[in-house]
Order: sequence, then structure tokens, then C-alpha cells
Amino acid sequence: MIINGKDWKTIWLREDGRSVGIIDQTKLPHDFTTCVLQNLEDTAKAIRNMLVRGAPLIGVSGAYGLMLAIQEDPSDAAIKYAKNYLSSTRPTAVNLAWALERVSQKVLNLPERNRGDAARAEAALIADEDISICKAIGEHGLRIFEEISASKIRGVEEPINVLTHCNAGWLATVDWGTALAPIYKANRAGMKIHVWVDETRPRNQGASLTAFELSCEGVPNTVIVDNAGGYLMQMGKVDAVIVGTDRTTRSGDVCNKIGTYLKALAAKDNSVPFYVALPKSTLDWALSDGIAEIPIEVRSEKEVSTIQGELVNGSKANQIVNINLIPESSKSFNPAFDVTQARLITGFITEIGILEPSEESLRRLL
Amino acid sequence: MIINGKDWKTIWLREDGRSVGIIDQTKLPHDFTTCVLQNLEDTAKAIRNMLVRGAPLIGVSGAYGLMLAIQEDPSDAAIKYAKNYLSSTRPTAVNLAWALERVSQKVLNLPERNRGDAARAEAALIADEDISICKAIGEHGLRIFEEISASKIRGVEEPINVLTHCNAGWLATVDWGTALAPIYKANRAGMKIHVWVDETRPRNQGASLTAFELSCEGVPNTVIVDNAGGYLMQMGKVDAVIVGTDRTTRSGDVCNKIGTYLKALAAKDNSVPFYVALPKSTLDWALSDGIAEIPIEVRSEKEVSTIQGELVNGSKANQIVNINLIPESSKSFNPAFDVTQARLITGFITEIGILEPSEESLRRLL
Repeated sequence: MIINGKDWKTIWLREDGRSVGIIDQTKLPHDFTTCVLQNLEDTAKAIRNMLVRGAPLIGVSGAYGLMLAIQEDPSDAAIKYAKNYLSSTRPTAVNLAWALERVSQKVLNLPERNRGDAARAEAALIADEDISICKAIGEHGLRIFEEISASKIRGVEEPINVLTHCNAGWLATVDWGTALAPIYKANRAGMKIHVWVDETRPRNQGASLTAFELSCEGVPNTVIVDNAGGYLMQMGKVDAVIVGTDRTTRSGDVCNKIGTYLKALAAKDNSVPFYVALPKSTLDWALSDGIAEIPIEVRSEKEVSTIQGELVNGSKANQIVNINLIPESSKSFNPAFDVTQARLITGFITEIGILEPSEESLRRLL
Repeated sequence: MIINGKDWKTIWLREDGRSVGIIDQTKLPHDFTTCVLQNLEDTAKAIRNMLVRGAPLIGVSGAYGLMLAIQEDPSDAAIKYAKNYLSSTRPTAVNLAWALERVSQKVLNLPERNRGDAARAEAALIADEDISICKAIGEHGLRIFEEISASKIRGVEEPINVLTHCNAGWLATVDWGTALAPIYKANRAGMKIHVWVDETRPRNQGASLTAFELSCEGVPNTVIVDNAGGYLMQMGKVDAVIVGTDRTTRSGDVCNKIGTYLKALAAKDNSVPFYVALPKSTLDWALSDGIAEIPIEVRSEKEVSTIQGELVNGSKANQIVNINLIPESSKSFNPAFDVTQARLITGFITEIGILEPSEESLRRLL
């Protein structure tokens, strides 16, 4: 994707061929900066503190993190340690475990001296595959918009209105995104499309990341509070909801950013189609009942009790500060994900096409 | 209610017998300050800028505002003008129109010289009645908690968990509150009760007002983002939802703070009882279909794109600042209310008891 005239990916192998570059997503949208990951610890911190986030990008970051660890120590013990350590940084997204397993499987049968190169090649392959998968999701999702467009009895000037929650755009992947890929494809195809962006408290990935990347790509968008989507659906202002997923069970239960479930309920109640963009790497075939079986990460109270932003009328430009939002005497609680059951989902947009939310249909992804 | 050892109401006739005192609710929870309303314009500004808010308190404030206008000019024309002017400050809550009508009906048949005193008496009566109504709502609602408590198969240490949205506490009324009145009654009766407080973006009335007043009264509470309630209900962590209302139609459709509808959907989906505290003054018998007929106020984009709070590590204590949350290139949209249809409501907690969400049952309030 293009930012200020330059083509960016969210993560890349640097020119030295050993270290990894990332965009620091905690500073967006007010400040666009990059960071260098030199080792295991840098990577673990970047994932835990959400400099990189989004299930697919967490997976790719994990792969590169394991590569960085192997470069320093290619022994079996070090690889096992690094895999466990990286795996513990974020418990909910399944892509992380999947990517770590893939890199370690690739290298463990090789002599130690070859492991660094093999890990580098595998991490790069995972990153490249992620881009191809996202492009394919974009193409398949585009067809949903073409159908909606054909069925709309409206003036030609009325855009297709899509609501999305959190960020499942190119910032959540290596490029293109999952839920936003069809939107980028539609926009580039000249279709009139407008996105309602849930701000997505507590970390505001919608307001700070989705709004930022949509605007960079020239897609009309409007930020709303997370409370507003139900009203917009009641008023007929939403043609489709598309979200990403952090882990999907074989039965089609979707674990995604907290609040996704509420939007799925509203979509069902108002007969608005609710789609989930699903790369195969996010499918956890071992699990069936999402509510009972997926571990939900509980994050720091501070993400609820304080919020970061750019000071209005600050003494200098882009002055980023934190403010308290709640009384000192009150506690807060911060679960990061919820589960949307298959019964609330219209379809999955995958790299092989649109699939129904059932085990039978999802099996085609295996 | 007690704040720092002193008994407060949200609005009062000052000792001069002519001007009106209010708590400035825009500064809470970080700063507790009061303001004086001297005339019509002061009152209109206080309502429009939400120094006073909450349907019942908006009604009482309107009554006092009309009194202030009549004190300055008791002519028919001036009363008509003031009534229209105050009525336009907030379009959704029906209590405002109701209170203005009540004061003007009371004075218009009197000689001009008597109108000021009559308006003062009527405004004070409306305020006193509001307190009595809220107390009665508290008593009736308490019975719901007693029933929940009796039916819970849990350890005695487990509290009743109530989720509330926005602020329908004593800060939204003159004293006691509507949705929070039963919680205060239960807490004073020694019942173990804990409140999940939706922060309620964009203006964060939950995080800043509900959490503040619950803590003042010693009620255990936990602030959550608006996205989290569905997850808590899925996990069995919510025994009941209680909210206020800004306008209720005769069929039982409830217009309340944006996002209420999403919580009602989640409550229904998880078989959690969903109650609405309804003082008679909030019933609009003229309307039936809430979605089609209730005007929804759209407020400033700035309430979404920026947020106010206390600077963390500020150079002075209680330094309140505003920060930008979205990219400069993005727009935002800010509808303030949504409608929860009667089909999603378990019951109305009113001053005459618990009523079913039907025209037949609500008729008893008339």
C-alpha cells in the first residue's frame, strides 16, 4: 500500500539480510515511524506491546522472531525456548502458533549451520504467501460487493456502505489486509464504496489504523463510536459488515476483537450480511466450540482507564499524550476478544472463495 | 447523595430565591464544580453543552430555565419564546417538552405579576416529584434484585452483577437516579451488588459520571469499554441489565443513549433480563413506533474525533485536556441515541411497579 507516495509493507527483511523492519503501529495515525527488530526479545516486545498486531501479521512477526533467535543460537534447545517464548506473547490469535510451528518444523531436521538460512527463507515465504492470500480474499470479496451493487435499488450516486470493526487491513497483515482487501479491490475497480469505521475501544485500532489506511488509499470513510453501528443498521445505512478473525474453529465460530459479537447480533437483527475474512492460517481445526474453547486474552486495565492521542492545541505538533478517563476509585476490566458463533455469520471470505459457516464447508480450506 | 460528606442534589434554587445552582457535569470525575444559572440563556447553554444531562434532569432544568425567563419578562410572548428556545436545546428527551408545558400551563392563566412565583413553585414541585418518583423506582427495582438473589445457586460471596449503560443515576435526575436507584437501595440494604459500567462513548458518561457516583456511594463497580458487555454476558457474568430512557413510546419502544440497543440484543441472546427504569414523565403516549417516530439528535463530530480527560503526568493536578483520536483526513458521525424495541425488554421499572413492555400495561402509568 502507498503512504506518502512510497510503497510500504508492514514488515520486511532489512538490507543487512539479518534484521527486520516494522512500522510502529502504536504511534499511528499521528506519527508514522519504523523500528528495527534485532533479536528475539525485540520481537516479543513488539508483539506484546502491539507495535505489530493483527492475527496474520502476528504470525509473520513470530516467524521472523524465530529466525532472529535461530541466527543467534540455532540449537534445538534455543529454538524450543524461542518458540515457547514468542508463543506466550499473545494467546488468542492462532496464526502465531501456526507460523512458529511451520518455521521450527522446517529447520529442526537440518544441521545447525543451515538453520538460519532455512528459517529466513521460510519466514519470507510465509510473508509472501500472506500477501497472495490477502489478494485472493480481496478478489473473492469483490464479488460480494458486485452482487450488492447489482441488487441495490438506489440512485447511482449512493455508495455501498460497509461497516468494519477493529483493523483487519493491510496493517494487520503484510499487505492488502483481510477484511479490507475487498474494499481496496472495489475502490481500485472504480466502485463507489464508503466504510463506517468502528473506533474499536479500548485501543482504537479502527479510529487510528483503519481510518488511516483507508484514507491513505483514498477510500471514503467515517469514524463512529462502537455504540453507533446498531443504529446505522436500523436506519438501513449498512449494506454489509466485514471483519477479520483471530481464530476460527472448525464449526465456524469466530474469535475476533471484543465487540465483534455485538455487531454480528445487530447485523442478524437487521438482515445485514455479516462476512468474516478468513485466511486458512487463522483456522484452528482442533477446536469446535469457540466460546468454551478459545482462550480470551485479558489485557491491562490501563488500556481502558487511559487513552492516548494527539494533544489539541499542544505546544508542539504531534504531541502525543495519555489521559485518564475514569475516577481514581474505580477499577476496569479489559478482555480483548469475544466469540461470534457460526449461526450469526453469513459467510467466510477465504483465499479459495466464499464458504458457508459450517465444518463441511470449511473443510475445503484444509 | 453524599459527596465528600455533604448531601448534594444536581440542581437547586439558590438562597437568593431567584437564581439556580447546578453541578457542572462536564468536569466530572476529575473536578467537582458548581455553576449558577441567572437567566434563560445560561440555562439553554447548560442543557445544550450538557453541564446538566439525563432526561429527568433536563426536564427539571427546563422548568427552572422557564422560571428564570419569566422572572425577567412574564409576558405571554416572552414565555412562548423561552419555551420554544429551551425546547430546541435537546430534541430527543421528551421530559423537556413535558416540563416546559407543565410550567407554562400553570402560569399562562395568571396575571403577569404572579407568574414568577407560580413558575418557581411549579419548578420546585417538579423537582420534588422527581425525587419521589426515583425513590419509588428504587424500591420497586430492589425487588428484582431480591428475586435474582434468591434464585442464584452460588456462594454467598458472589455479588449480583448488574450492567448499565450511560448514566441514569442521581446525576441524571435531581437525586437517587432511575436505573441506579434500585442499586443504591440494594447497597444500602446490605445486599452484595457489583456494577459493570459501560464507559459509553463518545461522551463517556459511564466512565466519568456513573463510576463516579457509584464510588461516592460505595458501590463496587468496574468500568468496561462498550464492546465488552456481550462477552461478559456470554461468560455468565451479568445477572441483569438496567438502563434509563430518554423517551418511551406507548408500545414500549425505548430511545436511550446510543449503544443501548446492542446491549439489549446481547441480553436477549444470553437470556439476561433487560430492564428499563421509566419515570412517567419519559413516556410519550403520542408515539408508537420508536424507530420511525422518535427524532434522533446528531451531535458534533468533535465528540467522536476528540476526547477529554486528565493528563497523565501533567504539570499540575487535575489538568484537563482534549486529545485528537482520528486522522485529520477522516470524518466522523455522531448520532446520540438509538431505539430498543419493546420485544427486547423484560420489564419497565416505574414509580408504580414493574410493568410489561406493552401498551396495555404502560397505560397504567397515565
